Amino acid sequence: MKPNDSVIAIKWQNNNLSLLDQRLLPHKVLWLDITNTEQTASAIRDMVVRGAPAIGITAAYGIAMAARSRYEESPDNWQTSIQSDLELLRDARPTAVNLVWAINRMLGVFERVEGDPVPLLLDEAKAIHEEDITANHRMGELGAELITPGKGVLTHCNAGSLATGGYGTALGVIRSAWQQKCINAVYADETRPWLQGARLTAWELIEDGIPTSLVVEGAASALMASGRIGWIIVGSDRIAANGDVANKIGTCNLAIIAHYYGVKFMVVAPVSTCDPNTASGQDIPIESRDPDEILSLGEQRIAAAQASAWNPVFDITPATLIDAIVTEKGVVREPNVEKMRVLWG
Amino acid sequence: MKPNDSVIAIKWQNNNLSLLDQRLLPHKVLWLDITNTEQTASAIRDMVVRGAPAIGITAAYGIAMAARSRYEESPDNWQTSIQSDLELLRDARPTAVNLVWAINRMLGVFERVEGDPVPLLLDEAKAIHEEDITANHRMGELGAELITPGKGVLTHCNAGSLATGGYGTALGVIRSAWQQKCINAVYADETRPWLQGARLTAWELIEDGIPTSLVVEGAASALMASGRIGWIIVGSDRIAANGDVANKIGTCNLAIIAHYYGVKFMVVAPVSTCDPNTASGQDIPIESRDPDEILSLGEQRIAAAQASAWNPVFDITPATLIDAIVTEKGVVREPNVEKMRVLWG
Repeated sequence: MKPNDSVIAIKWQNNNLSLLDQRLLPHKVLWLDITNTEQTASAIRDMVVRGAPAIGITAAYGIAMAARSRYEESPDNWQTSIQSDLELLRDARPTAVNLVWAINRMLGVFERVEGDPVPLLLDEAKAIHEEDITANHRMGELGAELITPGKGVLTHCNAGSLATGGYGTALGVIRSAWQQKCINAVYADETRPWLQGARLTAWELIEDGIPTSLVVEGAASALMASGRIGWIIVGSDRIAANGDVANKIGTCNLAIIAHYYGVKFMVVAPVSTCDPNTASGQDIPIESRDPDEILSLGEQRIAAAQASAWNPVFDITPATLIDAIVTEKGVVREPNVEKMRVLWG
Repeated sequence: MKPNDSVIAIKWQNNNLSLLDQRLLPHKVLWLDITNTEQTASAIRDMVVRGAPAIGITAAYGIAMAARSRYEESPDNWQTSIQSDLELLRDARPTAVNLVWAINRMLGVFERVEGDPVPLLLDEAKAIHEEDITANHRMGELGAELITPGKGVLTHCNAGSLATGGYGTALGVIRSAWQQKCINAVYADETRPWLQGARLTAWELIEDGIPTSLVVEGAASALMASGRIGWIIVGSDRIAANGDVANKIGTCNLAIIAHYYGVKFMVVAPVSTCDPNTASGQDIPIESRDPDEILSLGEQRIAAAQASAWNPVFDITPATLIDAIVTEKGVVREPNVEKMRVLWG
């Protein structure tokens, strides 16, 4: 294990999936055993697991488990009976394209199966998981190379070990840059309403020995105006063919503010997050979640009675505001539709 | 009482000050009796009362009560013995210039006093209070005139009845514009870390029959990109001689994002908030508060153990990002040092 790299959130053990329940962090470290499709879809929908690559990996293991169950029920008919499982998984969350990507990759194995599908499907799920970790280490190196030493970075939400197979995308770059001493401070947005920054990113980085200061989203301008920040580094849930980026609500705020101050803006995501079939950000479906995520905190109502809330959980950052998209296949600087094509080749 | 204007937070009754405890809203409507300087300073410091104009009014009543007590102790010597009271009040919070402004205005009365200072000082405090309400109604009219009908507005923090003598600055404009049907929706940032938007603005506007949708600060870009917002309307804690504006952390984020989308940006504040002795935003002291305001919510720790936080509670919006500063003495469009001079005349 590398330094600053101890956290994982997805394990395959005892022939079942095991997920770190991210709803309970940082107060409680609890692993949930996931054994069937309904549990897998619920875990994705209810955010036991979150983060685009982690959702894809989870769905891949979910399909292997679904095939096990469907094959046991009816060995001749499993490819038909599994369709409802695939649908349930596909519909669990709409924005992250990694979910569809992982399902399609698992479907590619179906054709090769003779007899029991489980060994081949499980191998594929494990390969997706392993390749994701390898990709994250590569992106960590590539992203860190872009950073001129001497300043801090600001990240948003959690694009870390907890959001991936391990090491993280944005936090992978931050881990690598921290090891190489080319950043001197890590700031994390608390990331309302779900507080992924306060609950997950701060926990994950501090577990790995990287000190982290939280800021409210509102402090972005003051922080960048202070000159402490060289790069904003974020992950993504889907990148369109033209380089527009869907990511946690608040990401585009940071890109606009960074542009104003001349701070650089980096998006870190595996090629599985890049979707050549989505022309631009306008074509990415944006999930809205329960207004109660804003109106209450835990069991406690915080807002006035009768107040309503608008709760889209992703936004679109236009390619024109992005300095670099870092993938495991290379860095796309100042992305546009032509430059993005190298990733599909 | 006008329509949409029922909320107040500061009363002089039974010869004492009565403050609505804003720390408990919206769950509990509790009035605190304030009878001496220590209680007045604590109420300001601990945010029982907040909002620049409300802080000024509170301090003015506080001085009248301090004079009552000091005059009782020693009729010949009260102007000396009250100095420690003035200092305590002046130091209660650093950013809002209305505090110093109100203290200086009360000091102006000291020279005219013969014998018991209380009647004159109490009259002055009441005048400050009344003039603030009158100014807010005037600003409400002037601000509403700037708005082309057909869109919604977004406000930040609470610059309402709760932050002033009554009617509000930014929310005064929103009240007037709502009455005139020239806005079709009101959005309010929840305003972390203190949640003034969720707890105070939503409560105050809904009490007055104006429906309000909360958004997280991160949703600003998505909201403006959607085309629903015509103006951002905010208050201020201090406006420098060149038109730079100090206001709740997150305000400058909104100004930068509004500028990017071509959404207009309005600051509403009485002339008492405008400080000709502060050359620019750089010269405004910015209060930092306890990191625990970010790391915990109420009694509950939300962030990872060992996480730290950076918690400045105001930021500076440069004049170049502001379309209009609305005061009771008129509107300064695209403010700069020359145009701001009309306010000091």
